[in-house]
Parts: sequence; structure tokens; C-alpha cells
Amino acid sequence: MKVIIRKGRKSDMPSALRLINELAVFEKEPNAVEVRLEDLETDGFGETPLFECYVAELDDKIVGMALFYPRYSTWKGPTIHLEDLIVQADKRQLKIGGKLYKKVIEHAYNLGVKRIEWNVLDWNTPAVDFYKSTGANVMNEWCNVQMDQKAMKTFLDK
Amino acid sequence: MKVIIRKGRKSDMPSALRLINELAVFEKEPNAVEVRLEDLETDGFGETPLFECYVAELDDKIVGMALFYPRYSTWKGPTIHLEDLIVQADKRQLKIGGKLYKKVIEHAYNLGVKRIEWNVLDWNTPAVDFYKSTGANVMNEWCNVQMDQKAMKTFLDK
Repeated sequence: MKVIIRKGRKSDMPSALRLINELAVFEKEPNAVEVRLEDLETDGFGETPLFECYVAELDDKIVGMALFYPRYSTWKGPTIHLEDLIVQADKRQLKIGGKLYKKVIEHAYNLGVKRIEWNVLDWNTPAVDFYKSTGANVMNEWCNVQMDQKAMKTFLDK
Repeated sequence: MKVIIRKGRKSDMPSALRLINELAVFEKEPNAVEVRLEDLETDGFGETPLFECYVAELDDKIVGMALFYPRYSTWKGPTIHLEDLIVQADKRQLKIGGKLYKKVIEHAYNLGVKRIEWNVLDWNTPAVDFYKSTGANVMNEWCNVQMDQKAMKTFLDK
């Protein structure tokens, strides 16, 4: 069994979308994924890529992905945001997630950014424990706030 | 008293840094700001700007700022992240924060992004209540996770 971690390509996006949908089910939002294959292809591999990713290949099949993009901290400067770290459900316990995680951190460190950051659901205890064991700082006093297009329009029309 | 909301310029960055430091004190991390004036000038107004901002001018002085940049959701597509919304302490109660907030939401809506998102400290009740009153979804089941350069190196060296 050989796991290969490599940069994600446009041709990997069907597998990426499958993993994204799997994560949405795990996070109890099975209908939340509106992104289509062509969006991922354009957004990640167009003239101005909005994200990059690493994929994990096992026996020539993609079984995991780490997707990230740059952010900016007004306290620290440029950072990297890890948006998704996903391993196919039946391929967990093979330490594939750990390999993808390390690759992204290595990449961020080599870029020289001051910080890498991400989010985790507070009930996802295995993930929280894993992140803490690697030296990451898991903060629960910050709330995430979101306003979708419909709410934006309602607010602006008031 | 006339408040002008306009796009932030490179020459506004000294005022921006003053406001950023003020916010760090308010958020109980007075020593957290490592960014220098020249960083803000380069990062925001170089060849590949890492952020944009709006500023609020009152009597020709900058008293507020909203700083934002693009992010990407693998569920929704392109989004805007509002990193900082700051109004000078002695100029609150003048609804300047609300004007800056509306301007950013309008900008995000006009760009066609699917979502605007940001973070708020759970003990900052006035801010949480304000965001909720505008139709934003304040979620407390997500934790923010961060790993700084030192922790990255420690992890990678293991």
C-alpha cells in the first residue's frame, strides 16, 4: 500500500467534488454543496486561481485532499487558510490525513507566512484532539459569522 | 458632522495601523500586532494586493476602517472575508461602523459572491447582537484553529 501526496490538478476535480460532498454529509449539512465541477475547475485552475490543493493517491485513486488559499491577518501579515482536509471514510486510520496536513504546513512554512489557520467543529473531538497534539491553538471564544446572498439583499433593501 | 466612506488608499495606512492597534487592545491582545506600516503598504497596494479596505472620514480624519479580502468556500464558491471592522473608540455611537459594514456588504453583493463571512469574539455582545440584527448567522459550534511559525517548525521537526 503506497500513498502518494502530490499537488492537485484540474483533472482531479471530480474526485475533489466527491470528497467535498462526503465532508458535507459528515458535517451534517448534506445539501449545502452548491459548487459544481466546472466551478472547481475554473476557480482553482483559471487565470487567477482562488485555491490550491494537495491530493492523496492510493492505488491510483484519490482518497484524500487538503485545499487551501491565502488570507491576511492585520496583526501578523500573510497567512494560509486550510479550508478542507478530507480523507475518504473507508480510508481513514491509514494516517493519510496526517500526511496531507503535514504537507500543507510544510508548504505554508516554506512560503514564510506567519500562520496557518482553519476551522473545526467543536463536536469533532478526534480532529480537535489531533490538531492540539500537533501544537495548534484551538480557540473556542471566536464565533464564525456568515451572511449569504439572500440575507445580503434583505439587509441592503432595508 | 459629515462622515465620508471611501476606498482606502496607501496614504491611509498610518491611520489603519493606529486603528488595528486599537482593536488589538480592545480584544485583549495589546502585543499581538507584528505588522508594520510598510507591510500594510506593500501587502495592500503592491502588485498583488492581499486585501482591500474602506475608510470612514470625519472632519478629514480617518476614524474607522473595514478591511476585507477574497476567500473560497468549497460548498458555495467565492466569498468575501471581513477581517476587521474598526471604529475609533471615541467616535462610536455615531453609526459609523454600520455605514462601513453596509458598504462592504454592498460591495460583496455587487461582486456576486455567495457569502460574506467574518469572526466575532463571543463576549463582544454588542457586536454579536448587531450582526444578528442585520440577518447574519452567528455560529458558535466552529472553533478557530491557528498554528504560528514557531509551532509549524516544531511540528515539522518532530
